[in-house]
Amino acid sequence: MIHTGKFIVIEGLEGAGKSTAVSIVKSCIEQAGHSLICTREPGGTAMAEAIRECVKKDWQNETVTTEAELLLMYAARAQLLHNVIHPALAAGDWVLGDRHDMSSQAYQGGGREIPQALIQPLRDITLKGFVPHFTFYLDVEPSVGLQRARGRGELDRIEQLDISFFERTRARYLSLAKQDDNCVVINTMQPIESVHQDIQFAIQQFLAV
Amino acid sequence: MIHTGKFIVIEGLEGAGKSTAVSIVKSCIEQAGHSLICTREPGGTAMAEAIRECVKKDWQNETVTTEAELLLMYAARAQLLHNVIHPALAAGDWVLGDRHDMSSQAYQGGGREIPQALIQPLRDITLKGFVPHFTFYLDVEPSVGLQRARGRGELDRIEQLDISFFERTRARYLSLAKQDDNCVVINTMQPIESVHQDIQFAIQQFLAV
Repeated sequence: MIHTGKFIVIEGLEGAGKSTAVSIVKSCIEQAGHSLICTREPGGTAMAEAIRECVKKDWQNETVTTEAELLLMYAARAQLLHNVIHPALAAGDWVLGDRHDMSSQAYQGGGREIPQALIQPLRDITLKGFVPHFTFYLDVEPSVGLQRARGRGELDRIEQLDISFFERTRARYLSLAKQDDNCVVINTMQPIESVHQDIQFAIQQFLAV
Repeated sequence: MIHTGKFIVIEGLEGAGKSTAVSIVKSCIEQAGHSLICTREPGGTAMAEAIRECVKKDWQNETVTTEAELLLMYAARAQLLHNVIHPALAAGDWVLGDRHDMSSQAYQGGGREIPQALIQPLRDITLKGFVPHFTFYLDVEPSVGLQRARGRGELDRIEQLDISFFERTRARYLSLAKQDDNCVVINTMQPIESVHQDIQFAIQQFLAV
């Protein structure tokens, strides 16, 4: 599939400031004259949102297996890619994603400690080699991020996990970001103005290329 | 995991007579004095039933990708195995399943023509080598089975597919059954009494071992 639009992704732990980053990046892309579609994962289509409900819900007496969690994330991603992301990019639109595949690698691979040998076949089936054109990884210490997230209200099934889960997730995020030439790490523990400046600078640099 | 109970599966196309087979096999197992749990796939737990809803539903303008369909089937299976089948067998109960992994291999592998190289990693992740102790494959010509199914009312998203889909599914079922020493093929195009006799004979043979 030939893509003329670009796919930009915002990644990070709970409370890293993804929503604010989305709105900054969105303005910059639209100011540059591109038509933009915003999505989120898991979700972004009717079916993928139903899958999101399944995976986020606390199923009470039923253990949500790490295998099912992983498979559902990729099922939702397959729906979003086929029905939204690929058609939009092919039509020349830009797409801004609140989370994408790096989340599965960080949360399920890092946090849940699912071996890469199990995740890679799912990536192959679902992504078929497709990768974002640019990724912002918003870095935050888990204790800081979770405190911010708690301030917003009730935490979901995954957000209720132990701090060590989020530490493993962050470590994997940082390691993935380091290996990815199309990923910038934003330190969100700086003063808010500096965070916003760093995000704006990175997207302007990308837009200028 | 050490299992003392047995896992018996009923497989077959729409209209093959799975429900009747379930009730015959159920009676025989219970008459032999075993405690029995009946399940169905996709489904059999609260979360797996929600996944079933997702995968069966007609999502209107949203294409359900073959990848998402496949991943959802295995997500539901992971939930059922962990929360129902393994604990029941470990407790010495028997489990009778209306469909299991052979369905994914036949429908998604045969019908949807998803290569085995894509399905096998999902089987590995989800089943971890676990296989049923005995499987009934109820064979029916697709045209006959679909006519019976239509008589029961509205068909779901998958049941509305072209006849050639079901012909490929049946061919894969027959080939899988042939390779499986723990699978019996029941010809359901015989007179109903003979079908019931064949099912009873096979389960009694299995119970006698």
